[in-house]
Amino acid sequence: MAQLQIGLLLFPNLTQLDLTGPLQVLSRIPGATVHLISKTMAPVPSDAVLLLPPTITFADCPQLDVICVPGGYGTDDLVGDDDTLDFLRRQAEGARYVTSVCTGSLVLGAAGLLRGYRATTHWSAIDDLAAFGAIPDRSRVCIDRNRITGGGVTAGIDFALTLVELLADRTTAQAIQLTLEYNPAPPFNAGSPETAPEPVVAMLKERLQGARQRRSESVARAAARLQAETETAA
Amino acid sequence: MAQLQIGLLLFPNLTQLDLTGPLQVLSRIPGATVHLISKTMAPVPSDAVLLLPPTITFADCPQLDVICVPGGYGTDDLVGDDDTLDFLRRQAEGARYVTSVCTGSLVLGAAGLLRGYRATTHWSAIDDLAAFGAIPDRSRVCIDRNRITGGGVTAGIDFALTLVELLADRTTAQAIQLTLEYNPAPPFNAGSPETAPEPVVAMLKERLQGARQRRSESVARAAARLQAETETAA
Repeated sequence: MAQLQIGLLLFPNLTQLDLTGPLQVLSRIPGATVHLISKTMAPVPSDAVLLLPPTITFADCPQLDVICVPGGYGTDDLVGDDDTLDFLRRQAEGARYVTSVCTGSLVLGAAGLLRGYRATTHWSAIDDLAAFGAIPDRSRVCIDRNRITGGGVTAGIDFALTLVELLADRTTAQAIQLTLEYNPAPPFNAGSPETAPEPVVAMLKERLQGARQRRSESVARAAARLQAETETAA
Repeated sequence: MAQLQIGLLLFPNLTQLDLTGPLQVLSRIPGATVHLISKTMAPVPSDAVLLLPPTITFADCPQLDVICVPGGYGTDDLVGDDDTLDFLRRQAEGARYVTSVCTGSLVLGAAGLLRGYRATTHWSAIDDLAAFGAIPDRSRVCIDRNRITGGGVTAGIDFALTLVELLADRTTAQAIQLTLEYNPAPPFNAGSPETAPEPVVAMLKERLQGARQRRSESVARAAARLQAETETAA
């Protein structure tokens, strides 16, 4: 059997756990090669202290079976980055699964890869998906044909285990879950706006206001460009 | 208020999610500085593709408020590494919290820092803790005075949120949980040997047999050295 080729996209100011959660799960699939892909081989700064050295460039990356785009504030720039969008479009043509975690789905959307597909994203960004023709879905892991999108940050672990069952089998996925002792016991019930205490939700929404505004503006610009490109091509 | 100084130890062949889960949580504490500490500034290979560039060396690291040791197969060597054990002992004297994730607790044990303390570790390593005078405890997050230990790999996220409440307050911890959309929904109920399907547990125990044997041998050697040092010092 040919090696399974899995690629995770690196870009500046990504939320590192969007990447490292799935990376831990997917790298345990027997026979899988996982690539960390960037424009150049320069280490990429994440949101959280860690610098992320790529393993391969866009130019050298083989056709992937799975392409995955993590999220984070860096997606504000990425949705307008032609090199990245072109790379994703090229890979998506031959990939078995086109996937994302958190606001990575906005980048898939900006590449025109979610038109008519149900997709999820971080809870705070769910209203931004429709601009790209996606059908927003608040599932933690959303599967629509070969598009698989995960919700915010830690949803990447649930997403990746779901993907392992599709790529390998349920026993392999369960063995990885057991190896990673993924038997979560959050000390608080504050993981979604529906369950978190109201003052916590209010405080965070207030604090995120500027970032959400910037995101909506970059999404609007990217959606307009995508629309214009589509009309030119038609 | 002085900056909160938090340090996570890097070492070859650590399980990267043991580190990156807590890193994501702890780096969101307002006013916290998180250090990635290694002997030298050379990038450190993790178990899962990712190279981890340190931010500071043992020699340059300030006194930490929190020291945290992640786990992974690399702890087999680390429990016998004097530079690391000395660094941990020095830091532990002035730290508010001495902590670990997964088999990182074996390294704390080898440094003599868990004698008479309850502690947890990865489910497959729980029997190794007693060699260092620790009292094995199968909690996902185990707090005994200022020793806080987390279970296997993904327990690091629960551990870190618990720690945020102690370092800051519950509202801060809940806001971080909501930001990270930590509302876990594992697709399978296979995260512990008690809940995973029996064939999965059996297969994994079979596969881990060699690694468990190597770990028990390295723990036995480290425990004997600790005992000899203690007798010399007495």
